[in-house]
Amino acid sequence: MKFNIALLAGDGIGPEVINEAVKVSDAIAKKFNHEITWTPALTGACAIDAVGVPYPDETHEICMAADAVLFGAIGHPKYDNDPSAPVRPEQGLLLMRKKLGLFANVRPTFTFPSLIDNSPLKRERIEGTDLVFLRELTGGIYFGEKGRRDDGETAFDNCVYTRVEVQRLAKKGFELAMTRSKKLCCVDKANVLETSRLWRETVQAMEKDYPEVEVSYEFVDAVAMRLVQWPNSYDVLITENLFGDILTDEASVISGSMGLMPSASVGEHTSLYEPIHGSYPQATGLNIANPLATVLSAAMMFEDAFGLKEEAEAIRTVVNQSLEQGIVTEDLVAKGVKAYSTSEVGDWLVANL
Amino acid sequence: MKFNIALLAGDGIGPEVINEAVKVSDAIAKKFNHEITWTPALTGACAIDAVGVPYPDETHEICMAADAVLFGAIGHPKYDNDPSAPVRPEQGLLLMRKKLGLFANVRPTFTFPSLIDNSPLKRERIEGTDLVFLRELTGGIYFGEKGRRDDGETAFDNCVYTRVEVQRLAKKGFELAMTRSKKLCCVDKANVLETSRLWRETVQAMEKDYPEVEVSYEFVDAVAMRLVQWPNSYDVLITENLFGDILTDEASVISGSMGLMPSASVGEHTSLYEPIHGSYPQATGLNIANPLATVLSAAMMFEDAFGLKEEAEAIRTVVNQSLEQGIVTEDLVAKGVKAYSTSEVGDWLVANL
Ligand SMILES: CC(C)[C@H](C(=O)O)[C@@H](O)C(=O)O
Ligand SMILES: CC(C)[C@H](C(=O)O)[C@@H](O)C(=O)O
Repeated sequence: MKFNIALLAGDGIGPEVINEAVKVSDAIAKKFNHEITWTPALTGACAIDAVGVPYPDETHEICMAADAVLFGAIGHPKYDNDPSAPVRPEQGLLLMRKKLGLFANVRPTFTFPSLIDNSPLKRERIEGTDLVFLRELTGGIYFGEKGRRDDGETAFDNCVYTRVEVQRLAKKGFELAMTRSKKLCCVDKANVLETSRLWRETVQAMEKDYPEVEVSYEFVDAVAMRLVQWPNSYDVLITENLFGDILTDEASVISGSMGLMPSASVGEHTSLYEPIHGSYPQATGLNIANPLATVLSAAMMFEDAFGLKEEAEAIRTVVNQSLEQGIVTEDLVAKGVKAYSTSEVGDWLVANL
Repeated sequence: MKFNIALLAGDGIGPEVINEAVKVSDAIAKKFNHEITWTPALTGACAIDAVGVPYPDETHEICMAADAVLFGAIGHPKYDNDPSAPVRPEQGLLLMRKKLGLFANVRPTFTFPSLIDNSPLKRERIEGTDLVFLRELTGGIYFGEKGRRDDGETAFDNCVYTRVEVQRLAKKGFELAMTRSKKLCCVDKANVLETSRLWRETVQAMEKDYPEVEVSYEFVDAVAMRLVQWPNSYDVLITENLFGDILTDEASVISGSMGLMPSASVGEHTSLYEPIHGSYPQATGLNIANPLATVLSAAMMFEDAFGLKEEAEAIRTVVNQSLEQGIVTEDLVAKGVKAYSTSEVGDWLVANL
């Protein structure tokens, strides 16, 4: 098969981790007889520096024309101290999600047997954890009307959801649950919020179309608690944008290996794959960042965007081997133990595919 | 001294745990020569059953006339399946907070040395944890305009904050930080929300009035992560209503002993003390609920509402003794070990004060 992949390396360690994912993807393509064309494009702080906006139209066109988007990370410390600066990398991220119609962010959380003791949580609490969050990504309070009144003394953010927005996200949740343990948890705050009541009633109405799926409804505060108490009691969770932002980051701690967690954003026009970690500016250019989350994101791309399960499995298998054999970057080794560089890890993966 | 305390036992295990806190408070009063008048009042599901509303006017008058309010828990399973039912216990809670002007919810999280291994988190991650959340409690998305449009197909919730609301909460945060390690963390989502930008700029402007306090600004998703990774890196945290709801519940897991965590809500007209756990309906009437969170809430009341530090310390000391000697309810004992009943724990505390 032939694929055209938009390559958005972004800022900080983005280009370095993307580079390894490209190497591994190219090796997979060679092995399985596919042909990948990579089309690089600017986004984030580097796009602001180059053309003044964080998500240029040209980048958007490249993404729309591609079969999938592989994304690194964005953000630069020079924008960190002033969240009200007129142009910021995050705005590019939100605009990109909206314009590409990426309404569902898919975030698996699972443990790696060889790394389970890295977790701040006790082994017996997390063993067997394998859950997926579906976070709504283009609605809610992120995109509602916001502003000031009363000479700037009053600020407001509007959270808005339509039934259709809930349905299309929930549909993905039900479908994913059908391919897994058939357990779905709808996370909301329906005891306080009207948008949550819309979420709950919409999901309730869909239950009859998926009679095999067992649906539970839990309040976001209760989930924030239970997620660290008994993470392995969850399977598929669906939730709105802001709750998803908070809970997926909380969940990322469970495995103790944030540098390994991939994600996908899917929707109307294309799909985008990215590591959940940020741009880690302090490590930029040092060739020490962990490339595995990006490599595993590429695996998600092969499986979900191109339907190539075997290719995805081959990537996951070699990643697991590198973990077991300790061919890992410094974030995963105990003090005093030899760490490999970003590119050495990538080279090893390619050589052992 | 003479105190008049409004006693809102509420639903479920509320009356049982309140009962033990009253016994302990009365014993403290006797020992230190104070006189307490308790004035019981209805709230929650029991108030709906009795008079049709969850926070009756009469209850409000009793609270306003009191020197402090001691609160149990509210909620009943018959309201759980339908968050859109026209009258619900939670509405009483929100109305009570608003009418009593309880704009700051104070939630300490600390570990008990004798119980540290109950935590899902590893000992080395939580040792020394002693943090306090100040959650804004009468503003934000909980109280903004909410409703439906488009024949019910679109739902909205408005999040609104004024500078004055932020200032009065932040002032409590700075003042609390001054009595502790002088570290304050402002939790927001200023990279996305206008209300968060108002929070951040307001707190930034107050820094000059507390030159000794070191203030940090962190995004809510990052805090959700770090709270389980390195809880002992935090001291005082301030945040808006919804973020506070989620994060304080997440934080309550750290100690591994939710049945022990007290809280206070303070503000304009009076102050209210309550355990953070809920009404635990399954345990109602069984005399098995852990009364210690409510007893420790009474200790907060003695210290903060009445300025009686020695009395508060006496309560905390005897609670610690009961923990060390294993005079505890079933939630805190290993399988097979003898547990004490709710009232036996209270009796032991009174006898050993
Ligand atoms: C950078 C920020 C706007 C973004 C979000 O809140 O969505 C990030 O936290 C994420 O989860 O991708
Ligand atoms: C019951 C609910 C309305 C309430 C809240 O969200 O404030 C509760 O979760 C709490 O934290 O006291």
